[in-house]
Amino acid sequence: MYKVGIVLFDDFTDVDFFLMYDLLGRTANSWTVSILGTKPEHNSHLGMTVKTDRHISEVVSQDVVLITSGKRGVPAAMRDAEFMSALDLNPAKQLIGSICAGSFILHELGLLKDKPLTTNPDAKAALQSMGGDVQDFPLVINGNIATAGGCLSLVYLIGWLAERLFDSSKRKSIQNHLIPAGQLALFEELITKTIYSAESANLHN
Amino acid sequence: MYKVGIVLFDDFTDVDFFLMYDLLGRTANSWTVSILGTKPEHNSHLGMTVKTDRHISEVVSQDVVLITSGKRGVPAAMRDAEFMSALDLNPAKQLIGSICAGSFILHELGLLKDKPLTTNPDAKAALQSMGGDVQDFPLVINGNIATAGGCLSLVYLIGWLAERLFDSSKRKSIQNHLIPAGQLALFEELITKTIYSAESANLHN
Repeated sequence: MYKVGIVLFDDFTDVDFFLMYDLLGRTANSWTVSILGTKPEHNSHLGMTVKTDRHISEVVSQDVVLITSGKRGVPAAMRDAEFMSALDLNPAKQLIGSICAGSFILHELGLLKDKPLTTNPDAKAALQSMGGDVQDFPLVINGNIATAGGCLSLVYLIGWLAERLFDSSKRKSIQNHLIPAGQLALFEELITKTIYSAESANLHN
Repeated sequence: MYKVGIVLFDDFTDVDFFLMYDLLGRTANSWTVSILGTKPEHNSHLGMTVKTDRHISEVVSQDVVLITSGKRGVPAAMRDAEFMSALDLNPAKQLIGSICAGSFILHELGLLKDKPLTTNPDAKAALQSMGGDVQDFPLVINGNIATAGGCLSLVYLIGWLAERLFDSSKRKSIQNHLIPAGQLALFEELITKTIYSAESANLHN
């Protein structure tokens, strides 16, 4: 069973965490999901409190590490030496993903040096000013690292993960519960097109 | 300022509540959002704890009432006499919405008698067996009552709400933060088409 660790911090964007957590919870016997943080619990932007399962230093023992987002939470986390130094990620052995401003953290860690990446559109300029090569795509893949931008792109990110670890049948079993009634074919086409375009661009890196 | 009440109960589906709550939190000075329940806090399907702001009987003082969902949570809520009798809704004076299995509750309350409605596709047969006229659409509107099916249809439901209370500019200001990078035009077309189709069908009721 794969170990998936979600990296959380204070002032995280609610939907970026909760939609990710819900999608990951839509399949049994695929992976165990742990919430990792620097404290026993972290508070969301809208005031929700989420208990962490393990200290963030345990990212090293995860097969998959996913970074959440937060307009104020990410900059604060990046200023936190304990947080940044504990994020000892290894893209040679782990699958790594981020949603929205989570890619700022991967960029700051040097994991996306001279590589294309994405974030939510309203954070594009800030990431560019840090030297990020920001693409106007919902999902950008570099080997084992996938960045996604715009909260709903979590469907693409977790879909990519399901296909990398399992297959398209696993992806569908996760996403289909969330798709609007009567629009399954439309979303399936959009999701596969988005993921396969990102994988195809990755081949040329 | 409009008062929006979200009706919560134990064993609610995480994303149905959290995506709704996050979307409603994406606009300032439009509405105040209260979480209503029978207890001081309710637990989600995945074990999250959410504090309620007011007792469910205060639905009567809300301008908008939104019903969340839960595969096990909804049937349990419908068996709870305190819960059902407190849901004194008035579609002549209130806007009422539901996501996924939330429409079972509106149907049980008699608010959608002989009216079309929707739910998540895997709950369609169960709602039909209760006598519901289930449509294969993501959003079905009857006057002031809108039912939505499939969690991501929350974007349509809250979009409908923003257009009913304000305008399309308010809808865009809420939804655009969540749209996948590079896919804004595609989603705007999908969202307007879905909402306007539902409104158009409503005119013929």
